[in-house]
Amino acid sequence: MKKILVINSGSSSLKYQLFNFDGQNYEVMAKGLAERIGLEGSNVNIKIDGNKQTRNVPMPSHMEAFQEVINLLLSGPLKSMDEIAAVGHRGLHGGEIFKDSVKLNEEVIAQMASLSDLAPLHIPACIAGIRAVQKLLPNVPQVAVFDTTFHQTMKPEAYMYAINSALYEKYKIRRYGFHGTSHAYVAEEAAKLLGKKGKIITCHLGNGASISAVDNGKCVDTSMGFTPLAGVIMGTRSGDVDPYIPVYLQKVLNISGEEANAILNKQSGMFGICGYSDNRDVEVKFEQGDEKAVLAMNMYVHSILHYIGSYIAVLGGVDAIVFTAGVGENGAILRKMVVDRLAYLGIKLDVENNKKRGEKVEISTPDSRVHVYVIPTNEELMIAKDTVRLAF
Amino acid sequence: MKKILVINSGSSSLKYQLFNFDGQNYEVMAKGLAERIGLEGSNVNIKIDGNKQTRNVPMPSHMEAFQEVINLLLSGPLKSMDEIAAVGHRGLHGGEIFKDSVKLNEEVIAQMASLSDLAPLHIPACIAGIRAVQKLLPNVPQVAVFDTTFHQTMKPEAYMYAINSALYEKYKIRRYGFHGTSHAYVAEEAAKLLGKKGKIITCHLGNGASISAVDNGKCVDTSMGFTPLAGVIMGTRSGDVDPYIPVYLQKVLNISGEEANAILNKQSGMFGICGYSDNRDVEVKFEQGDEKAVLAMNMYVHSILHYIGSYIAVLGGVDAIVFTAGVGENGAILRKMVVDRLAYLGIKLDVENNKKRGEKVEISTPDSRVHVYVIPTNEELMIAKDTVRLAF
Repeated sequence: MKKILVINSGSSSLKYQLFNFDGQNYEVMAKGLAERIGLEGSNVNIKIDGNKQTRNVPMPSHMEAFQEVINLLLSGPLKSMDEIAAVGHRGLHGGEIFKDSVKLNEEVIAQMASLSDLAPLHIPACIAGIRAVQKLLPNVPQVAVFDTTFHQTMKPEAYMYAINSALYEKYKIRRYGFHGTSHAYVAEEAAKLLGKKGKIITCHLGNGASISAVDNGKCVDTSMGFTPLAGVIMGTRSGDVDPYIPVYLQKVLNISGEEANAILNKQSGMFGICGYSDNRDVEVKFEQGDEKAVLAMNMYVHSILHYIGSYIAVLGGVDAIVFTAGVGENGAILRKMVVDRLAYLGIKLDVENNKKRGEKVEISTPDSRVHVYVIPTNEELMIAKDTVRLAF
Repeated sequence: MKKILVINSGSSSLKYQLFNFDGQNYEVMAKGLAERIGLEGSNVNIKIDGNKQTRNVPMPSHMEAFQEVINLLLSGPLKSMDEIAAVGHRGLHGGEIFKDSVKLNEEVIAQMASLSDLAPLHIPACIAGIRAVQKLLPNVPQVAVFDTTFHQTMKPEAYMYAINSALYEKYKIRRYGFHGTSHAYVAEEAAKLLGKKGKIITCHLGNGASISAVDNGKCVDTSMGFTPLAGVIMGTRSGDVDPYIPVYLQKVLNISGEEANAILNKQSGMFGICGYSDNRDVEVKFEQGDEKAVLAMNMYVHSILHYIGSYIAVLGGVDAIVFTAGVGENGAILRKMVVDRLAYLGIKLDVENNKKRGEKVEISTPDSRVHVYVIPTNEELMIAKDTVRLAF
């Protein structure tokens, strides 16, 4: 029996999940969130078997936040800190350095820090989390699992941009892709259902969204790019737009490049089109016939269809399409609209199964020529598994 | 018999072609180019039956350039200026105003001028050409044919970006698409070969490049966007990139937004990857095994494959794929690489026919499940036809 703690540090937050690993299965013992770290009104919570407990405590940094997490764990599932056998961190960006998850040491942490330019908010936060663990649990092995790793198998024609090659060499401007842990997880689960690795298109549709093409277990293409702004339409992110648009916005709105980027990241996407970023709201408004919500849904479907079509061409066919993450797991209307457009492939929707929410289910009919699955994602479990694989 | 003059005005150039229309067929009587208008070393030429004559003359504006064109035409195919029955102009950008080609009058010219922000170099040049014709041929009807018109049939889900809808309403930021005259021409020719309008994907691959999805004769999607920067990889243009990239370039290179945009437009694409923008050079280097040319070709193919795949999904199938423009008509290696990747659709390349250059030919085998054509484009002919349709 090993207890594995998984940590996801944001710039002002620290999410955690404690697993009990019996050598075969991973059981969630507790999970929770410390938020508003370094801000007024910081608080930390723990959920055990659905019961939530929250404490309002000042947490100037990730160090105090992690101490509070440990305190909460000691008040519940843990008798002693020593029970924690290993800690796994969500490392957002592994650049081109990390082709796999990695056991942490000072050299690795320095390599992670060297990538900070690529994710200036997330990488320092992740390292702050690592340092906090080092201080309180100095003898516990730590592992970092990156969102980008799964996409490192892409070939240059998929990850290079058609810009001067010096810009790639000097500034590392290339497609990295994100949500890799989720794509890897659901592709693996889909392969089990399929009985073979095959050609799988994974649609991680949450507030952030990306679609990947997975061939024989390896990622060959993905819709997010140099940053998580590119690709399909998202809750508040535009996804792909003409790259002149951020420049034009600067000119007509008299704003800076970073301000134009903030508009594309925070005030665009479904929110920009119809005023709602949460797909649950959009689907309700869509059903009420709200004109802007109808447009937003049609655009969302169009944008997903683009990538599914592209990736069928890249893969040279498709065995399964997977929907996951908040919208993918719960957005029954969206799924129906997408799958209906794929009828030309001989794909047929199982209307009843498609009504299910948040559970693992095949939503294509038995005679559909391509399998369509809904598979709830579990990034924390993937991190726990990689932590066990590498920590000891 | 009617003589129709077609004019394509650039910021410092004026291309022309004189057609003789016998009521059924259009015969090219002469064509040529005035270049370096307003610059040192301006010159104007005329080609008749392959014989070229060039004059070096100062041409401070499009007015003098057009006078020189008339002089050359009068020294050859024309006895009198009065023989010109109508003039057709290539209007690059028709915004959302022009859903069809249009006969010119002062009101229409003012509408065109109102769109100058969308194409600040091209629209004033086009109007300068129109004014020159008005002055020298005051009684001759003129027509403008826009690159954007063919794409005006796209639905909102294809032309809207996922940005705040106010940015569309106020600044007209949307997908317009370009090369419409070419896409319309080759789609029409392909429909004749196909014996039905059907579902056609047209690949206009020149130094600029765009791909369109045409359903039953109407454009439903196209790869260029708000500007001609978006879409597939081009000679010197990047095509689609993460929209954060121009902002990141501003930051790391300490340049302005417009400078970043100039990098993406002029120093990127095939040129940026391998140092050659002309596909003939790239294919030669590719055959020599030059590493960067191989990467550039693989990226080009990947980018075209993306759009073909997307548009099959958007169309819900495909009856024909058409290659046109410089690269599409002559790039036999590129065509083979693209078509080979489409084998999963039951598409088979006719290797012998694919070796032909610059002629109308079916390059798929008789048992191929989708027809693949090479169709040389003819934008001037399309402009002449629309001019005849609307001028009288």
